[in-house]
Amino acid sequence: MNTPANLKDVAEAAGVSISTASRALAGKTSISEKTRSRVQQVARELNYQPNVQARGLRSARTNIIGLTIPSLTNPYFATMAATIQERAAANGHTTLITTSNEDPEQLKQAIYSMSQMRVDGMIVVPSENSKSLLMNIHRAGTPVVLIDRELPGTPLPSYASQALPGITAAVAELAARGHTRIGYLSGPVETSTGAQRLAAFEQICAHTGTSNDFIFRGGYDVKKGWDGAQALLHRGITALIAGDSMMTFGALDYCYQHGINIGTDLAFVGFDDLVYMSLQPAPISVIDQNVVAMSEQAYDGLVRLIGGADPPDQAVVLDTTYISRASTHCTPPTTTRR
Amino acid sequence: MNTPANLKDVAEAAGVSISTASRALAGKTSISEKTRSRVQQVARELNYQPNVQARGLRSARTNIIGLTIPSLTNPYFATMAATIQERAAANGHTTLITTSNEDPEQLKQAIYSMSQMRVDGMIVVPSENSKSLLMNIHRAGTPVVLIDRELPGTPLPSYASQALPGITAAVAELAARGHTRIGYLSGPVETSTGAQRLAAFEQICAHTGTSNDFIFRGGYDVKKGWDGAQALLHRGITALIAGDSMMTFGALDYCYQHGINIGTDLAFVGFDDLVYMSLQPAPISVIDQNVVAMSEQAYDGLVRLIGGADPPDQAVVLDTTYISRASTHCTPPTTTRR
Repeated sequence: MNTPANLKDVAEAAGVSISTASRALAGKTSISEKTRSRVQQVARELNYQPNVQARGLRSARTNIIGLTIPSLTNPYFATMAATIQERAAANGHTTLITTSNEDPEQLKQAIYSMSQMRVDGMIVVPSENSKSLLMNIHRAGTPVVLIDRELPGTPLPSYASQALPGITAAVAELAARGHTRIGYLSGPVETSTGAQRLAAFEQICAHTGTSNDFIFRGGYDVKKGWDGAQALLHRGITALIAGDSMMTFGALDYCYQHGINIGTDLAFVGFDDLVYMSLQPAPISVIDQNVVAMSEQAYDGLVRLIGGADPPDQAVVLDTTYISRASTHCTPPTTTRR
Repeated sequence: MNTPANLKDVAEAAGVSISTASRALAGKTSISEKTRSRVQQVARELNYQPNVQARGLRSARTNIIGLTIPSLTNPYFATMAATIQERAAANGHTTLITTSNEDPEQLKQAIYSMSQMRVDGMIVVPSENSKSLLMNIHRAGTPVVLIDRELPGTPLPSYASQALPGITAAVAELAARGHTRIGYLSGPVETSTGAQRLAAFEQICAHTGTSNDFIFRGGYDVKKGWDGAQALLHRGITALIAGDSMMTFGALDYCYQHGINIGTDLAFVGFDDLVYMSLQPAPISVIDQNVVAMSEQAYDGLVRLIGGADPPDQAVVLDTTYISRASTHCTPPTTTRR
């Protein structure tokens, strides 16, 4: 849908009068619990924005911003949330954080709840599923910026990283040390980040003449990292690049459990420079998305929008960087077949 | 203060009429920005609760709960937040999360923001500093439960762990393996958890006849763990217990950087069973607070309060448990002095 639903739309869809719909949405106890629930459910489904008219006019600020991320157990997103919270607090903003638990419906519910809270603005890790809801909130006058992922075809400013520079540098180091059997743990290609990183890996392999036969189609979770490390090590890789932090943890766990020494038996590259990456006997080389800088720029961009300014760029893309540590300071073992 | 401030108190403290105060708090643009800011500031300082009368009467629910934790970069609290979010989502609640960044003023601001958001109830990691604010919110009719820490002298239900069982089992294993020089990295004794865990360590040392000379007064951060490991290893300990997860990470880092092999050169016990604890070449034995169970019980307690029931217990205390892994499966090295 392209225009926000109004009260009349909600009333018609719920089969009640406009007056009843209004009172139900205001939580009046003169309306039965059952009717209230139904009207509120319909309002959510239609992306109803109660303050469409009022929002443009009001200048009172709550000094509260909203942040919606997929998960708190993923330390990449936890770092993002902590960075934004600290920068916002220093600037007098309280940050309300919601998580979607990687579920499209929870994501929509989280964003919808934020929009009902009269936050001054929102920072969102979006999905295609949430596009129309975010556009309605944007049209209703609440500033929205995207982080980590883009939503092409929308005017919403975004702050994300591009995988190519970091992945290129990682493969270049491994190739220079003599590795020709380099494995790659890919994220889901249905996500923009998963597809972009896999394309970057294939591009640099083609450029350097490295085999790209050792790709495991994984996902952004620990178990996929374990499964991928197992599958690729059985195929005789001497080096492994993980396509996100959760798969990094799973692959490391597989190696530790099987006595494979990182940095001697296997050259290993992780993703995202989280504290746990250097907190290992052989500190882990990483492709770093610079999540702190990304988060700070997204917050600063939101503050400019709240202040009425245009953002300087619609899509800010930060280069990934490669940090070389002990985990990749090895040549292929003389017996590479397992 | 023992009774919530009312609108008249705020108006008097701000030096404006009641009508002006009311309009300022409602964000009306007919009041100057300067006056609005001052009135809102005064309202915060006085813990003004706008809906004191209305709250008790209203039955409309927002299906949103609030959660306030110290930090998202501490994986113990990140796990707490993720657990509550997932359980709440399965029950139709959206969770708004705020963080205090370990700052007393940010904590008060975070709690205050939640209370303004008409959440159905709040789960809070409290501090002494936030006691009067939380009591005002409680009196105003919004259900509040505490987690991780208690606030003695208040009727607020709390869900926390007791350190003694886990620390006792850890010292017992180390003593049984022949360790007599056991170091302890203590948290800040100004916190209830820091004081309680240190007392538990001293109690079990006295009971088993183990020396309690090797105590480092640390804090809940990574650097204190590094500093404490350094100081105690130089004094010749053969075993080390960390008093929280952040010090665990710092102490591990010190050992890895200095070639001290965990589980052979040093018996090591961490705190909280986080995924990174078993994700090590020598998996780390831990004193576990069972944060998942604690978080689920706190959420369930809040749901009962929201539903109008009394919580079954005012203070729920979960036993810590000890999980023995490879990091403690060693006797003291034959040359124990460094």
